[in-house]
Amino acid sequence: MLQLGISKQEYSKRVSAVQDAMKDKGLDAFVFWNGTSVFYLAGFAFIATERPMCLILGNGGKRTMFVPRLEVEHAREAPEVDAVIHYLEYPAEKHPMRVLAEKLEEMGLGKASLGADGEGYGSPQGYKGPRLSEVLPGAKVTVIRDLVEKMRMVKSREEITLIRESARWGNLAHVLLQEYSLPGRTENEVSMRASLEATTMMIKTLGRSYAAQSSGRSGASAGFRGQIGANSALPHAITINAVLRRGDVLVTGAGASVAGYGSELERTMFVQEVSDEKKRFFDHMMTTQEIAFEAIRPGRKCSDVDEAVRAHFDKHNLWECWRHHTGHALGLLGHEAPFFDTGEDTVIEPGMVFSVEPGLYVPGLGGFRHSDTIAVTQTGIEFLTYYPRELKDLITG
Amino acid sequence: MLQLGISKQEYSKRVSAVQDAMKDKGLDAFVFWNGTSVFYLAGFAFIATERPMCLILGNGGKRTMFVPRLEVEHAREAPEVDAVIHYLEYPAEKHPMRVLAEKLEEMGLGKASLGADGEGYGSPQGYKGPRLSEVLPGAKVTVIRDLVEKMRMVKSREEITLIRESARWGNLAHVLLQEYSLPGRTENEVSMRASLEATTMMIKTLGRSYAAQSSGRSGASAGFRGQIGANSALPHAITINAVLRRGDVLVTGAGASVAGYGSELERTMFVQEVSDEKKRFFDHMMTTQEIAFEAIRPGRKCSDVDEAVRAHFDKHNLWECWRHHTGHALGLLGHEAPFFDTGEDTVIEPGMVFSVEPGLYVPGLGGFRHSDTIAVTQTGIEFLTYYPRELKDLITG
Repeated sequence: MLQLGISKQEYSKRVSAVQDAMKDKGLDAFVFWNGTSVFYLAGFAFIATERPMCLILGNGGKRTMFVPRLEVEHAREAPEVDAVIHYLEYPAEKHPMRVLAEKLEEMGLGKASLGADGEGYGSPQGYKGPRLSEVLPGAKVTVIRDLVEKMRMVKSREEITLIRESARWGNLAHVLLQEYSLPGRTENEVSMRASLEATTMMIKTLGRSYAAQSSGRSGASAGFRGQIGANSALPHAITINAVLRRGDVLVTGAGASVAGYGSELERTMFVQEVSDEKKRFFDHMMTTQEIAFEAIRPGRKCSDVDEAVRAHFDKHNLWECWRHHTGHALGLLGHEAPFFDTGEDTVIEPGMVFSVEPGLYVPGLGGFRHSDTIAVTQTGIEFLTYYPRELKDLITG
Repeated sequence: MLQLGISKQEYSKRVSAVQDAMKDKGLDAFVFWNGTSVFYLAGFAFIATERPMCLILGNGGKRTMFVPRLEVEHAREAPEVDAVIHYLEYPAEKHPMRVLAEKLEEMGLGKASLGADGEGYGSPQGYKGPRLSEVLPGAKVTVIRDLVEKMRMVKSREEITLIRESARWGNLAHVLLQEYSLPGRTENEVSMRASLEATTMMIKTLGRSYAAQSSGRSGASAGFRGQIGANSALPHAITINAVLRRGDVLVTGAGASVAGYGSELERTMFVQEVSDEKKRFFDHMMTTQEIAFEAIRPGRKCSDVDEAVRAHFDKHNLWECWRHHTGHALGLLGHEAPFFDTGEDTVIEPGMVFSVEPGLYVPGLGGFRHSDTIAVTQTGIEFLTYYPRELKDLITG
């Protein structure tokens, strides 16, 4: 059977890295409210609701999940979760945070030095509650928001393998998307058909080794997110159920969720024909993406990449078409730090995985953006996405 | 053309209600970071990323969106947004929060009394930044998290119309889901096919009046979220790509996004046959749901509904099967306050919209839960979902 997941050994490394940081800061335990951090350290993916959940990592490395009653059996199934404690419900007569405080006292942490990635649970779905420091006044709570986020910046070989697998199925979904992008078809129809077929084939191919491990995404998908025709000039349009017309610019997006990891593939396509004016912007976009590929080298700063791209905007007087920075890291989340942005001093390191996606946007005409996912190597970059980039290959029908 | 959206008049009412609250508290302006509140007050739906965005509502009712450069044209298209101000990028040389502080000073709010629904922007996607009170030290910032959330609890007639429309298309998706739920089929295949076909027909029917107005959802969908066979005993399972087998219990979910609003329809189904043991739990579930329907009356407390259901668990010694409270409000979000929960004192009012979904869960056997969406009327409840609830109608193939 294919192995599509993170090994026990790698989970141990992650936990050890947190333990080292805890030791440095004299912490007895660390409370993670962030669902991505919980998944990264304990492999437990869940649907976040009004009900608070957190991972308590002891300085001995034990991982205890604090969950509502309805998640007990689910959390116990997660092989990396060492213990599960629970409260009944939210809001309940006794607030879950009060139950948490009691449990932490029982664990001998009532007067401990606790790290936490936030003051408490946060959710827009009707949750209200006190801070951890309020319910456990005897403890010293130190909030360190980005401990795990920083660890996630450099991906391991196992993580890159999952992102590469994601890119493979995003590629298939995109092939189908291109095939179905014909005049008269609607956005949702083309997108859902391509996604359905690619997902079906993905699952048949990977079989029981496949798990999305994501509460929000499953399988492969490809679509336009509203970037069709003139509306493609909005870099972050949302689905508008457009009908495709001959000559439309399309800005696409495709990916797949594999054991929690994703990839990003975006292409500028044209429905059956392309005007000279659009071709001109397409060519600039291609050039800026190539400038970015060349600029990404370990040891350089993230800002260097964005500045190299911006020099092209300067030289060709293209600032009216500029809308956003050159790219972002990704992995467990679609956007992660660091960013290819003039304000980002972070040094590029081997193992970092980025989207490379400078774009040009022309109101009334369309948007022009490819996005490829690359991994930084010892000497340069490795492409994880591999869909054709040339104009001749991106004219549909 | 069908009208599927919130009228200008209703937006005015919403803004007036916030203005009234601001007046009460002596606030000169209110800053909304919460994307749901932004959509509720200004009708602007967007994709949240590392880039902070907020709505600034002046005490005269003017709605100003603060966005990154890439969202300027998009925000201007939103008919309820009165003005758009922007920063270049995140992180950039000058942090977006510093730009916001300057813009607020230019608006004469540098020393104002400001309300805010949070200390600042929050995102797990690589964002870091100071609090509003730190960048605007001359102002007095009062955090009131749930101002709009409380307003959203009672739905208007227009909102209920959209939720009803959502329920209609969730129903179609569910009809197809049931039709395709045959032995040997995989979870994703059945779910995606039903969703694709229902969405296609939904869009053909509603035509240009349809907009999902949601960054995450579009069209109709139906699925199982992993609740297939014994795994259905996990109330919040996630998709596991299960293969359907004869005799499996299925716990489904269906809905559709209509102008930002959703509905919730869930059914306990059986693949081709049902054992007597499963039938027994199904019957208890039906009874508890009916108890809840009877208990929901304006003037009662939300906790009364949960307590009525719990009395049945007591009487029949069913506590081993209990996992969660009886339901939650919904509308713009899938879960909203208040909750049918023993700890929820909120009084039930006409216009509130709830899921009603007591459940029983038996490890190794399966889960048993229907969820219907109801609106509270002057005297009782009105069903917004209308899918068959009886066992005889829920055996597939």
